[in-house]
Amino acid sequence: MLTANYVGGGRIAIAEAEPSAPGPDEVQVAVAYAGLCGTDLHILHGAMDARVATPLVFGHEMSGTIAAVGAEVTAWSVGQHVTVMPLAWDGTCPACRAGHTHICQNLNFIGIDSPGALQPLWNVPADTLVALPPTLRLDHAALVEPVAVAVHDVRRSGLRAGDRVVVIGGGPIGVLIATVARHAGAAVTVIELDAARRGGVEALGFATVDPAGVDVVAHIEEWTAGAGADVVFEVSGAAAAVRTATALAKVRGTVVVVAIHPTPREVDLQRVFWRELTILGARVYEREDFVRAVELLDEHVIPADAVITAVSPLSETAEAFRTLESGRALKVLIDVAGQR
Amino acid sequence: MLTANYVGGGRIAIAEAEPSAPGPDEVQVAVAYAGLCGTDLHILHGAMDARVATPLVFGHEMSGTIAAVGAEVTAWSVGQHVTVMPLAWDGTCPACRAGHTHICQNLNFIGIDSPGALQPLWNVPADTLVALPPTLRLDHAALVEPVAVAVHDVRRSGLRAGDRVVVIGGGPIGVLIATVARHAGAAVTVIELDAARRGGVEALGFATVDPAGVDVVAHIEEWTAGAGADVVFEVSGAAAAVRTATALAKVRGTVVVVAIHPTPREVDLQRVFWRELTILGARVYEREDFVRAVELLDEHVIPADAVITAVSPLSETAEAFRTLESGRALKVLIDVAGQR
Repeated sequence: MLTANYVGGGRIAIAEAEPSAPGPDEVQVAVAYAGLCGTDLHILHGAMDARVATPLVFGHEMSGTIAAVGAEVTAWSVGQHVTVMPLAWDGTCPACRAGHTHICQNLNFIGIDSPGALQPLWNVPADTLVALPPTLRLDHAALVEPVAVAVHDVRRSGLRAGDRVVVIGGGPIGVLIATVARHAGAAVTVIELDAARRGGVEALGFATVDPAGVDVVAHIEEWTAGAGADVVFEVSGAAAAVRTATALAKVRGTVVVVAIHPTPREVDLQRVFWRELTILGARVYEREDFVRAVELLDEHVIPADAVITAVSPLSETAEAFRTLESGRALKVLIDVAGQR
Repeated sequence: MLTANYVGGGRIAIAEAEPSAPGPDEVQVAVAYAGLCGTDLHILHGAMDARVATPLVFGHEMSGTIAAVGAEVTAWSVGQHVTVMPLAWDGTCPACRAGHTHICQNLNFIGIDSPGALQPLWNVPADTLVALPPTLRLDHAALVEPVAVAVHDVRRSGLRAGDRVVVIGGGPIGVLIATVARHAGAAVTVIELDAARRGGVEALGFATVDPAGVDVVAHIEEWTAGAGADVVFEVSGAAAAVRTATALAKVRGTVVVVAIHPTPREVDLQRVFWRELTILGARVYEREDFVRAVELLDEHVIPADAVITAVSPLSETAEAFRTLESGRALKVLIDVAGQR
């Protein structure tokens, strides 16, 4: 079978590999589709070389069908449609003991810290599987992981129906957060610099603001009748956006840090104090977020066809990443099944 | 009567003034003691000149006895011991309408935005009064306001019995937060650079750390068996302390921003994301915090005699501020009643 490997130095190698049988607690999944995400791009750019052991079969957003089950697996059977929640925790660290297994202090993120989904036959621990309904198309189901991120972010934010919400950054995660927040009853404005991205966001029915052309703070003040936003999601990773985020939040409002900020950012702590703001981090997801994400896709709440802007064969993974790098695609899927 | 006025340019003037009768909704309080706080020092240093109209009778921590009541005041009578919650809100801004009157978007902070307690006969709106029990000494009762700050900060933090808590900064507010947190069942470590202050904090039974001599992160890691602190209170206002605060917090831990940070601070948002931390601002207090502060003082939970390090006559307010500036005093009270 063909596999897509990050081999260091910004390069991807497509390599032949022999499938192996699943271990006793494992399931072998015939991967249908795998999505490429910003973290995969970080890996490709070498930003995670200190963490990643090469060659690495990467990819952690996927859908598939069970091809074989290990000797001790009784809960799953061949032919079921599944996705994988790609987290393996140690169960013994203080975070796990406190119930926060999803952000275990020694987390193994499958597809980053161990082999991932860009291979046609992938062995994963059986307890990472999440069932997919037969009504959910497998290409759409490759979005479950990023939708689960958005579900987790919205859940962490504590937003309520009727809230006015600002999403800074109109990339795939920003669009999914906006969609999940709207479905929860919020009114959503998306701030996005790129005109083409703004157009795509508007086509999904969201209000947008161009921060280069509009006084964003005045705009949101007016939109919220002088109160400020109930919740602001910082999804851009930009230093300037951090300052905007606290400036937009209402008294007792919440800023959710979703994006990666590789270096410390200047934060207006005087504003945090003055307005009694809450800034909170939201990372990955818990099982309930995955289950909810499957439901939202199955109910067509998520505009999957609009989010999936391209599907490429596994042999063209490098080219697919270049499409992603261009910033014009939302989600690029790899058709992995075709390479079995 | 003698009054202490901030007159700009870093100067205080002691001036004669005629007492006025209380308005129909007001009460005239014979001020017993007034405490000087860091905010008063900021005013004296000119840092709030843009906000403060001079000459200003300042002071907002106090105790006293009702001397006269306005024509329409029925709930209070002459001779009652009281303190004042020095907040006047407009009741109409979005924050007030959402129930957060204490951080009204147009808040009048009495003693900063309007005349304060450094005068023997002080007229205040009747609805700012908080009753004091006859068992509570009036010098101790001058601490109600800063204790209410600490009660509010601890309440906002959500800390629970058994939590491991770090307080960065061993000044008066830090000591009061540590005391309130300990009374709520937390184990507390105070980080303080100044050796004399550390000595005072230790004398109150708290563990301390000298951040100049100890690897604070390693120390708290060991103290918490690798987890990190449940709650960190940032009370120092130092840029370096902000970085320490996020480094000390456990997965899903909370950092409470209590101090004034006049300029934006670098915050490790990657850590906020990675550990799903919560950073929240806590400012002033609500009435329930004031009521609880009165109880804690009356029950001798607060070591009032240790916190009050000096009492000066109103005529020596300028000298009292110099004692405060030295950093060696915790709380300096002004004996206002003596100047009636």
